Amino acid sequence: MDIDKSRNFSDWFNTVISDAALADLRYNVKGFVVFRPWSVKSMKLMYAAYEDELEARGHSPSLFPALIPESNFKIEGEHVEGFTPQVFWVEQAGGNKLEERLAMRPTSETAMYQMYALWIQGLADLPLKIYQSCQVWRHETKATKPFFRSREFYWIEAHDCFSTEKEARAQVKEDMEMTEAVVHQQFGIPFLFCQRPEWDKFPGAVHTYAADTLMPDGRVLQLPSTHLLGTNFAKAFNVNYQDEKGNRSPVWQTCYGPCISRIYGAMFSVHGDSKGLVLPFDFAPLQAVIVPILGKEKDGLAIMKYAEEVLEHLHKAGLRARIDSTPSTPGFKYNHWELHGVPIRIEIGGREAEQKSLTLVVRDAPPKTKATIPLASAAETIRKEGRLLSARLVSKADAYFNSHQAHAKTMDELKAALERGFIVRAPYCSMEKEEGKACADEIKAKLVGDVRGIKYGEAAPAHGEKCVQCGKAAKHFAYVARQY
Amino acid sequence: MDIDKSRNFSDWFNTVISDAALADLRYNVKGFVVFRPWSVKSMKLMYAAYEDELEARGHSPSLFPALIPESNFKIEGEHVEGFTPQVFWVEQAGGNKLEERLAMRPTSETAMYQMYALWIQGLADLPLKIYQSCQVWRHETKATKPFFRSREFYWIEAHDCFSTEKEARAQVKEDMEMTEAVVHQQFGIPFLFCQRPEWDKFPGAVHTYAADTLMPDGRVLQLPSTHLLGTNFAKAFNVNYQDEKGNRSPVWQTCYGPCISRIYGAMFSVHGDSKGLVLPFDFAPLQAVIVPILGKEKDGLAIMKYAEEVLEHLHKAGLRARIDSTPSTPGFKYNHWELHGVPIRIEIGGREAEQKSLTLVVRDAPPKTKATIPLASAAETIRKEGRLLSARLVSKADAYFNSHQAHAKTMDELKAALERGFIVRAPYCSMEKEEGKACADEIKAKLVGDVRGIKYGEAAPAHGEKCVQCGKAAKHFAYVARQY
Repeated sequence: MDIDKSRNFSDWFNTVISDAALADLRYNVKGFVVFRPWSVKSMKLMYAAYEDELEARGHSPSLFPALIPESNFKIEGEHVEGFTPQVFWVEQAGGNKLEERLAMRPTSETAMYQMYALWIQGLADLPLKIYQSCQVWRHETKATKPFFRSREFYWIEAHDCFSTEKEARAQVKEDMEMTEAVVHQQFGIPFLFCQRPEWDKFPGAVHTYAADTLMPDGRVLQLPSTHLLGTNFAKAFNVNYQDEKGNRSPVWQTCYGPCISRIYGAMFSVHGDSKGLVLPFDFAPLQAVIVPILGKEKDGLAIMKYAEEVLEHLHKAGLRARIDSTPSTPGFKYNHWELHGVPIRIEIGGREAEQKSLTLVVRDAPPKTKATIPLASAAETIRKEGRLLSARLVSKADAYFNSHQAHAKTMDELKAALERGFIVRAPYCSMEKEEGKACADEIKAKLVGDVRGIKYGEAAPAHGEKCVQCGKAAKHFAYVARQY
Repeated sequence: MDIDKSRNFSDWFNTVISDAALADLRYNVKGFVVFRPWSVKSMKLMYAAYEDELEARGHSPSLFPALIPESNFKIEGEHVEGFTPQVFWVEQAGGNKLEERLAMRPTSETAMYQMYALWIQGLADLPLKIYQSCQVWRHETKATKPFFRSREFYWIEAHDCFSTEKEARAQVKEDMEMTEAVVHQQFGIPFLFCQRPEWDKFPGAVHTYAADTLMPDGRVLQLPSTHLLGTNFAKAFNVNYQDEKGNRSPVWQTCYGPCISRIYGAMFSVHGDSKGLVLPFDFAPLQAVIVPILGKEKDGLAIMKYAEEVLEHLHKAGLRARIDSTPSTPGFKYNHWELHGVPIRIEIGGREAEQKSLTLVVRDAPPKTKATIPLASAAETIRKEGRLLSARLVSKADAYFNSHQAHAKTMDELKAALERGFIVRAPYCSMEKEEGKACADEIKAKLVGDVRGIKYGEAAPAHGEKCVQCGKAAKHFAYVARQY
């Protein structure tokens, strides 16, 4: 392929999904896709990285049923209102109508918290920090787009309980730190954590904090969000603990939801180039591919034998590698594996076989940049080059993200910045629904811009500034962007 | 706990599930359970072992939608007849009735093979070997039992396509070899692979081969099954390939389904003892637990500091270990971790801290068997003891399984052996439905015995023998057992 993603992101995105066989969109249920091996292998590695991070921070894995009785679902009022329009309902099993219809989980609060009520008795049971890796189903009414928004997606949901508000707030912060450690540092995706406006919170939450990353077409995509649930759900589901004095109080709760299939989509969109995927070394299904260059026929056997020796050397070092011994030309293979984002290509011809060397080409190197290295240190060099590649991806993504930030004081400035595909900081009247939602609606209607909220940790209130939309005294600096 | 599983397996099973917190059965949808961290951690390790084996043998992971349109489901006649009574149906999404109702997958043939028809064109696309790790839903009408039979379970399904019958038959054999390599060699569960009678095949299959293991109450439990699908589904779903001469032919298919949540149940049932779980070293969530013995108060700090040093040593070696620093007594902790099946207990008191040594107790060792070893070689020794423990579990399970096999020539002999909880080999008239099913029905009615089929690879036909039930000439030796 040869498509400039900054000029035609949609075309680039669809072409890479199809040509690198990431997903097949022809499945005959609308909004559902088939994930193919090349994306699934990366997503498995991403799941493992995230689960390791969650477990290192005290979370334990569990598995809750995919079906939730309608009555559970109705226990928390805001939650049912927020999710009911999106629920797939099961009403029949075998030939029989069920006594009560069952929701296919759109998220698991209402499945999990009734169990938490049974498990939590006293302070010894707290904190309770549990996650599950699973798929969820939401009958999205917005246009679907593979990886970014589909009616079935693969995520992790972590649901934590504490005896104090302070610990719950600390957990929200930790969730953001985990996002930094995994999504930014490991997957190389920069983002901005915003506290969402009151009118755009998770149904049932006190506060919602969500990470927005920027796609090459200048639209932001929401990555993991973490929610301070307060005691809303705990009161509704009777999740109480008894303190030292014998008083029973509702627990403080948080939940956190990294969506792996979406983050994978963001990852390849952020790092890809005109030739196709560019994958961080640790999350590439294949880290190195060996392409034998069989020039003269008589060398063929020796070259293939040496290629096997190289492969064994890499496998022994724990690298994911293979030989491409298909009958295609080397040039065809180069394009094929560049499209698939394999970090390191190893070319092996007669000279390399004779010298016991390897010629390396790194996926993001300028054209014709090659290095010949000895076999003895090949695994070590490849690992080093892989680390350097991943580090470059982070830097490049950060540079792009940081260079697409703007400030606006007027609607004209805001409009101009949004049209250039920027995330825009602008003074804004209020994040309360009654005072502030009308301006967000206006910005949406006039400029196709979305008010994403206040940047987490941004100390400066907007003293003396005027709301970019209504001109009233601004309480905050809001971040505005066009969204997916 | 202190329950003899051979005398009261049901009580043992329920107690261990509850006391070791493997699952919570109080979820409010019938036949659905919540899997808790201790079982989920082992199941994650088991999934990884199985996926590694599948990938080493050329399978690639994919993810197909959980929902299947009813029309797909009806394409293969036997399949729809076999599964329809068990399907959970989705008919509503949000507030709207769907145009076509959707089945929650009870198995994925009908989701996958329509995609295979798009992916397979010529010989270059074959063999196609794909697996997915997922959950499936079946509205079982039989009594449910956690892990063994529930309405939602966690499995892997591998679906393979070939150009020849020979390759498909070789795959069925390979599936059995994988079962041996993983379920027997790694999980330590012995089994017998039987070709199921014609009346007991997977709906749509030409042949079904299934592994039966034996539970402590003398009933067999079906573990993975592999199915030669022939060209039945390929013809129904138009999965064709074009050969060198330009002729289009349907592919030959196989499918294979190891159910991880059930195999986990079998694993702990086979290895457990009167004190609780006994887990193979590689599949224990925690491989070693350190119990500090704080005798005199003044030693406490030094002992705890040394325990941290030991833990670091074990973590560096990649072992899953932790310190139990709860306020309970050492005796309470011993019982607790024995119940949970932790392979190695490390006792650390003043003497150990002073000598830089560890006192080890292996989970299946006779009472009071302890060994004191130096810290320097602790990780190595623990790994060796772990390997030995796992090997003993396999031998012990094999010995039990082999000693519960019997032969019968008469219904009285068969009855006696079934009542003793044996798997019984008996001459049998026929595995064809018209000729042989009546005898199976009689054996079920009279003896509560189930005809499991012919042992895979058993060469000897039953020359000159008479069917144990009807007395007609026996074509085969059948295996009969009481089943779950």
